[in-house]
Amino acid sequence: MTSDTSREAVQINTPPPYLRLASDENLPVVLTVAGSDSSGGAGIEADVKTITAHRCYAMTCASALTIQTPTKVFSVHPTPREVVRDILDVNLQDMRCDVIKTGMLTVDAAEILADKLNSLGDNRPKLVVDPVLVATSGSSLSSGGIVDVMTKKLTPLADLLTPNVPECFKLIGKEMEVKSHEDMLQLALEVAKVTNSKNILVKGGHIPWADENKKYITDVLFMRGESKYFVYKGNYVPTSHTHGTGCTLASSIASNLAHGYSLQQAVYGGVEYVQNAVSIGCTVTKKHVTTNGPINHVYAINIPLDRMISDECFSAHQVLDEYEKSTSKEIKIGNDFFSYLISHPVVKPHWDSYTKHPFVLEVAKGTIDLKKLQFFIEQDYSYLIDYARVHCIAASKSPTLEDIESELLIVGSVRHEMSEHERRLRKDFGVVGQDYFENIQRGPALKAYSRYFNDVARNGNWQELVLALSPCLMGYGHALLNIKDEITCDEDSVCRDWCDTYLSERYHDAMAKGVILLNNIAKTYPPNELQTLVKIFADVCELETNFWTAALEYSQ
Amino acid sequence: MTSDTSREAVQINTPPPYLRLASDENLPVVLTVAGSDSSGGAGIEADVKTITAHRCYAMTCASALTIQTPTKVFSVHPTPREVVRDILDVNLQDMRCDVIKTGMLTVDAAEILADKLNSLGDNRPKLVVDPVLVATSGSSLSSGGIVDVMTKKLTPLADLLTPNVPECFKLIGKEMEVKSHEDMLQLALEVAKVTNSKNILVKGGHIPWADENKKYITDVLFMRGESKYFVYKGNYVPTSHTHGTGCTLASSIASNLAHGYSLQQAVYGGVEYVQNAVSIGCTVTKKHVTTNGPINHVYAINIPLDRMISDECFSAHQVLDEYEKSTSKEIKIGNDFFSYLISHPVVKPHWDSYTKHPFVLEVAKGTIDLKKLQFFIEQDYSYLIDYARVHCIAASKSPTLEDIESELLIVGSVRHEMSEHERRLRKDFGVVGQDYFENIQRGPALKAYSRYFNDVARNGNWQELVLALSPCLMGYGHALLNIKDEITCDEDSVCRDWCDTYLSERYHDAMAKGVILLNNIAKTYPPNELQTLVKIFADVCELETNFWTAALEYSQ
Repeated sequence: MTSDTSREAVQINTPPPYLRLASDENLPVVLTVAGSDSSGGAGIEADVKTITAHRCYAMTCASALTIQTPTKVFSVHPTPREVVRDILDVNLQDMRCDVIKTGMLTVDAAEILADKLNSLGDNRPKLVVDPVLVATSGSSLSSGGIVDVMTKKLTPLADLLTPNVPECFKLIGKEMEVKSHEDMLQLALEVAKVTNSKNILVKGGHIPWADENKKYITDVLFMRGESKYFVYKGNYVPTSHTHGTGCTLASSIASNLAHGYSLQQAVYGGVEYVQNAVSIGCTVTKKHVTTNGPINHVYAINIPLDRMISDECFSAHQVLDEYEKSTSKEIKIGNDFFSYLISHPVVKPHWDSYTKHPFVLEVAKGTIDLKKLQFFIEQDYSYLIDYARVHCIAASKSPTLEDIESELLIVGSVRHEMSEHERRLRKDFGVVGQDYFENIQRGPALKAYSRYFNDVARNGNWQELVLALSPCLMGYGHALLNIKDEITCDEDSVCRDWCDTYLSERYHDAMAKGVILLNNIAKTYPPNELQTLVKIFADVCELETNFWTAALEYSQ
Repeated sequence: MTSDTSREAVQINTPPPYLRLASDENLPVVLTVAGSDSSGGAGIEADVKTITAHRCYAMTCASALTIQTPTKVFSVHPTPREVVRDILDVNLQDMRCDVIKTGMLTVDAAEILADKLNSLGDNRPKLVVDPVLVATSGSSLSSGGIVDVMTKKLTPLADLLTPNVPECFKLIGKEMEVKSHEDMLQLALEVAKVTNSKNILVKGGHIPWADENKKYITDVLFMRGESKYFVYKGNYVPTSHTHGTGCTLASSIASNLAHGYSLQQAVYGGVEYVQNAVSIGCTVTKKHVTTNGPINHVYAINIPLDRMISDECFSAHQVLDEYEKSTSKEIKIGNDFFSYLISHPVVKPHWDSYTKHPFVLEVAKGTIDLKKLQFFIEQDYSYLIDYARVHCIAASKSPTLEDIESELLIVGSVRHEMSEHERRLRKDFGVVGQDYFENIQRGPALKAYSRYFNDVARNGNWQELVLALSPCLMGYGHALLNIKDEITCDEDSVCRDWCDTYLSERYHDAMAKGVILLNNIAKTYPPNELQTLVKIFADVCELETNFWTAALEYSQ
């Protein structure tokens, strides 16, 4: 041994105890029979990524090696027939298998798989067939004769068939006009006739529809047995990163089925997953590749080492380098973080439309329709429950005991505000009983706001949470200050009562504390991460604006 | 259209807003060059799973298709030389690549990869070489001549080489005695000479050592440049599920490197990840396969659809079937869940050793070494901060406003208990200043307890959290009741003061509320999930026992 070799010992810990509850987990198993896309965006690689991201166990049977990148398919090397046969034989002999998902198939692979499934009789796994005949990029991936073999032998065994519209045309051997959901259903019926598949999901991703100037896409699920169809309507995402969406959708559905979800649930989860993966996207191609990049399969996954570092039982800190404290990107925020925030170009438009919202002026003047005001107070009552919960989470993440206590004091004042709302609803709107408060219907603006809270609470640190909670506290005060001189409603009206709450000394004290807290956060926060705080503040101002707009637009 | 086809429309939502902060994420890219294991436990499949589980983007280059299951390798079908070349060419031409990880290689693949890397000069990605010469199952996977090509051409380019002990022997062409960590380092030095790799990780998973009757395994990282070595010491997991550990470790390290972690961090994360994946395990083979099953790559992954269902903005509920409320597995728990718990065979031994702990008797008799008591009070002070935080999280997850308030009241009394501890430390142990309390060193028993709390707080529901928090509240009271008649310490001693706290009316009131809460939970909890609650209660009783034992065994 060299004498100058220094030694360090690192203790490896047991896994987090809670995870061990899942010991020897009975993972659902999904087998993908498809072509390999070595660049990782589509084919077997996309399938394994998707199945893994769904906490299932993936097996593979490569029908071919394709040499491709998002730019084009360079060449295709089919797997010999006997290799496909042997792989399927040993996989299904030694391994459990809940669902088989197929992608690009050779005639050989389609035949062998169909024979294998027939030989298993009632014991065969579920089958999801993605008839890869036309790739998202438009290139035709299938070899000759595959349509015939597929429709005669394989698709009659399929629990679900997932063609896109051009693939539907190939399967039924003709083109049809597709201008409405009804046309898509008609197409599904035709495909069902030719393929004999139990259920058909016609994917409309190739056709964005337009509706009041907003583009959207639809997928139509036709369930033959139940004579039922579902229309899944999603936002059209203007992106060129759509490489591998078809493979991913079918694998996601297969994984959800393997978990035991029903078909319509599994399809729902698949459509949402692909939508998220497309919207979030990722940059993994080089700069010269400008179109059809891969989607982000891993958007919901946490990096294991990150968690180990935050787990003080793990010894990760023993091998951690000091975090670099960059000061190069320092941002000039002056002494007042709150002023910096509300004048920041990302925030300002949202802060202005929030704190100068016409709803507030209508209340101040007493001209607000009382139905709208009641709707608002009810939504706000329900909102405050979430607001209190998020303050509890902020308390749990607070750096000091004092911060924990401040958060809990706020929870107390939120309870006070709720009782004020309760009093108003009983006194001015004739609400009786307790059930009423428990059965308030949550509107879309409230739901969107709550999910933002949930999301930041789940993923954010303490500072991010404080920033998410600030616009509500600060904005109500400022909105009322803005129109203070225009308050002309009756002295003893519910409108005046509401205005007074946010102009009260009690409320302004709370705002002053809020300003101090924001300043303290800005002093110690890594300057290069401040933009995330700014973005969160802006997002929540927008949610607040929408919350008041929803009340103003309310009609029963 | 058939007239009896009923239609349902489902709105697809945008992704959770917080996730969108990662829009167009710059995912780290890892390319694996290895054999495909179609049964999914090892090879390229294990690599893609691991890379995905690390939130990286995986690309592949299959050096061969192997037909294998955990039982054996049935056959190997090498990929033609020009196909390997073309895959590497187009992947590295169109895609970004941060790290290349190699597994089982043919002579062709090793040569082509080495040539390609040399042609890239300084722009080449990092290289992690797992010299797959002997699989975990013992079978030799390499073709003739590979050792020669590898050591001459490929390993000199490697940033890390990860041989197991038998592979070290193959690489250096002889066997050596390996009876200590120093022997492993010696082996690493020999391997470094032959392979010219910058860093060597000798994997000791094949050799469990024994230490005071406990088996453990070690991996030794030798960093040539720094003349430094790290010994990673982990618990030996008695399992036969180790198929694919080597591939997984190298891929995990490669992924961590791609994320920008240093080598010793990346190795740490890899070793822990594999340790977790082995410990947690999974059952995916059929019953006749009894050995060498795959490890659990997905232990830390959440199922996307589960999250969509809990997100009220998502429309998942529109396609959700009613949850089945099973009553078949109903468990008889009587009217008193607390009595059921402490007499349950899973809980009883831990409850007894906790509530009849000798530490308590020594305090009651006043015979406790005051250094030990001080250590205990300090650890408990630090513990109570965590305890308060977890109650905040429990508040945020509480079903009703009343439950939220109960939790926050508890946080208040925790603060009271902390101030009692502070008073004792100042009065009886001469502690001065505030820094003292902020700099309490957290011992292993406290850390283990805290991580359990963190884990349940992160992953558990409200009921599980309540169960995790209950043993502390209930156990202290019962432990003191058990030895009530044996309290002989001085009336005005710190020992008596401590005993009195948990015998006080105030404390017994809190316990009575705790019993009611437990009963309410048991009434509505799904009977078939009660066992998880029982397990959590038992686990925490054990953590409490260890906490007192640590104090009793404390010596400065």
